[in-house]
Amino acid sequence: MQKRYLFAPGPTQVPPEVLLAMASPIIHHRAPDFVELFEQVRADLKWLFQTTNDVLVLASSGTGGMEGSVANFLSPGDKAIVVNMGKFGERWGKICKSFGVIVDEIVVEWGHAVDPQLIAEALQKNPDTKAVFIQASETSTGVANDTHAIADIVRPLSDTILVVDAITALGVFDIRTDEWGVDVVVTGSQKALMLPPGLAFVSVSEKAWKLAESAKNSYFYYNFKKEAEGQRKQQTAFTPAVSMIVGLKEALRMLKEEGLQNIFARHARLANAMREGVAAAGLSIFPKESPSNALTAIQAPEGIDGQKIYARLREPYAITAAGGQDHLKGKIFRISHMGYVDTFDVIMALSAVEMVLKDLGHPVPLGVGVGKAEELLRKPI
Amino acid sequence: MQKRYLFAPGPTQVPPEVLLAMASPIIHHRAPDFVELFEQVRADLKWLFQTTNDVLVLASSGTGGMEGSVANFLSPGDKAIVVNMGKFGERWGKICKSFGVIVDEIVVEWGHAVDPQLIAEALQKNPDTKAVFIQASETSTGVANDTHAIADIVRPLSDTILVVDAITALGVFDIRTDEWGVDVVVTGSQKALMLPPGLAFVSVSEKAWKLAESAKNSYFYYNFKKEAEGQRKQQTAFTPAVSMIVGLKEALRMLKEEGLQNIFARHARLANAMREGVAAAGLSIFPKESPSNALTAIQAPEGIDGQKIYARLREPYAITAAGGQDHLKGKIFRISHMGYVDTFDVIMALSAVEMVLKDLGHPVPLGVGVGKAEELLRKPI
Repeated sequence: MQKRYLFAPGPTQVPPEVLLAMASPIIHHRAPDFVELFEQVRADLKWLFQTTNDVLVLASSGTGGMEGSVANFLSPGDKAIVVNMGKFGERWGKICKSFGVIVDEIVVEWGHAVDPQLIAEALQKNPDTKAVFIQASETSTGVANDTHAIADIVRPLSDTILVVDAITALGVFDIRTDEWGVDVVVTGSQKALMLPPGLAFVSVSEKAWKLAESAKNSYFYYNFKKEAEGQRKQQTAFTPAVSMIVGLKEALRMLKEEGLQNIFARHARLANAMREGVAAAGLSIFPKESPSNALTAIQAPEGIDGQKIYARLREPYAITAAGGQDHLKGKIFRISHMGYVDTFDVIMALSAVEMVLKDLGHPVPLGVGVGKAEELLRKPI
Repeated sequence: MQKRYLFAPGPTQVPPEVLLAMASPIIHHRAPDFVELFEQVRADLKWLFQTTNDVLVLASSGTGGMEGSVANFLSPGDKAIVVNMGKFGERWGKICKSFGVIVDEIVVEWGHAVDPQLIAEALQKNPDTKAVFIQASETSTGVANDTHAIADIVRPLSDTILVVDAITALGVFDIRTDEWGVDVVVTGSQKALMLPPGLAFVSVSEKAWKLAESAKNSYFYYNFKKEAEGQRKQQTAFTPAVSMIVGLKEALRMLKEEGLQNIFARHARLANAMREGVAAAGLSIFPKESPSNALTAIQAPEGIDGQKIYARLREPYAITAAGGQDHLKGKIFRISHMGYVDTFDVIMALSAVEMVLKDLGHPVPLGVGVGKAEELLRKPI
């Protein structure tokens, strides 16, 4: 008998309320029930995205949302600035290149956030840049960017849009789409939205729609204009993932009940306890600055293979976390605390890390990391 | 947002596999599907009860199984020995009295197990005693009895049966119904069987059936003879709780997959870690001897109301444990580790206890109890 726990930075845990909602009988996507459902989730998504812009709902991975956010706004030969500070920044570059976009890549050492000044400089060098692509939270390194500061740089430019991969940021920490003037915000269902994988969401500003008008690129499925026109009338262009949208309604209901500021505060509190617990256990987090509240990337101690830590969390402890990617493979392991998470998820994760490291011969003091987290997470009277 | 955790000594946690099975469409209890289902669970229950006796399946709480185990075997004016070492031993006495049985009550100080010798002496004093009623595990105090030793005393007597409330024992630790010669074993669904409340199970030996033949008492619903005759043909006397039985099939499949010895070893390992963790945190368990592996009754520290600990576990930590009953109210609180439980349930429970006691002003060292449990529960390579 073994209970399984999911602490990967996506897919994340899904609340039983959402799973139950998703087990409801299928409704038809051209029937009146769907119209009502879709109207509700569209309104609630605008609340979550802090925007009055359209938020498109796509049956897709997050990467599909990213692809559409390149294809719909840029033409082959257009210039774009891409921040590469990890696996997913690298992906922005790959997608841009697939669509013939000329990429000015700002390579940031993995573990660091991008200095917004570098973006300002790149824009000065190429004032005809059509778009800037960043991650709000780089999942591969556990580092968050200062989206607000970057938006302040891009917003004044009338012909340049800011496209933000907020896949492990939206619903974790504050992303003020309208207030900061973020043109395109992409997220996925399987992170802080507490759903299984299968939906992508993209918000699109007026400035971005204007750019889309002149853009010429190859796409059929990710046709944002067509989607937006349909979705404003509660109709998706193609068959929507109906059960996922039923679950989405319930997840958004739960998120609204908690409230945005409480959601951000919860993630901040849990992430802080995780980081402090890791430090108390004598370990180091990987980010050199600005750690994301979505997940904690932890350095494997000297002489211990990070992949072995990841593998041992999984078996025999039945905890699915994540290892490192590319050149970080073996160097780090990652534990998520985003979405449907609370105090005891952090306690369990720290406890498992302590046991695994002890098993692997690292002299970790048992209970010390957990004790630190308890100190920070308990709720004194 | 708050995740809820169930650490009460019943109802206990139900595995998702069982919940899913129970969500299957209802089958009819006089249809062929039910015959096949019931045949399977009857066979599997015999495996769990370690018996070739009939194991009756009743739509009832455990207490209904206890009531039937008095009414079917004893007549008004019959003598019975009842061991009262807690709330549930007291209940045996109350049920017996309700059915006109003359009770010789062996009162054991709560927190202790019964000395089997006391039962031998009571039987010598009243050789015409028809039945001995004990708890294998007294849920109110967290104490286990030596059922084997007691069975050794009763088994040789041709006209006396041993009736065991194994509601928090069966599927937790070893109860060898046939090998030890336990005549009647009662359990409920909402404990180690990993189901919601709603089913009681009773195994009946040949000796007990013989007694039932001459017994005259008042019952209609709990007619064991009628049930046994029907259930041998896969038909219950009254409408069975069909969804519960569908869930039972899945729960028994999971238990069989784990194997009896592994189940007992898991409970022993978790219970030991819980007790050692409690001690490392500077607390004392309530049992003076023979603590049950089903749950741990913990003494509230001097000056702290045990009900406050229980209440605070519940809010704000969202953990449902149990307080003390009757004169133990305020003196103890109880945490279950039976059924669908694994390493991290004990870790969470200990962590919550540490935080709650700290909140309430008790100088508990944070993380120390958890660290002790980690040491005992980790799985060295």
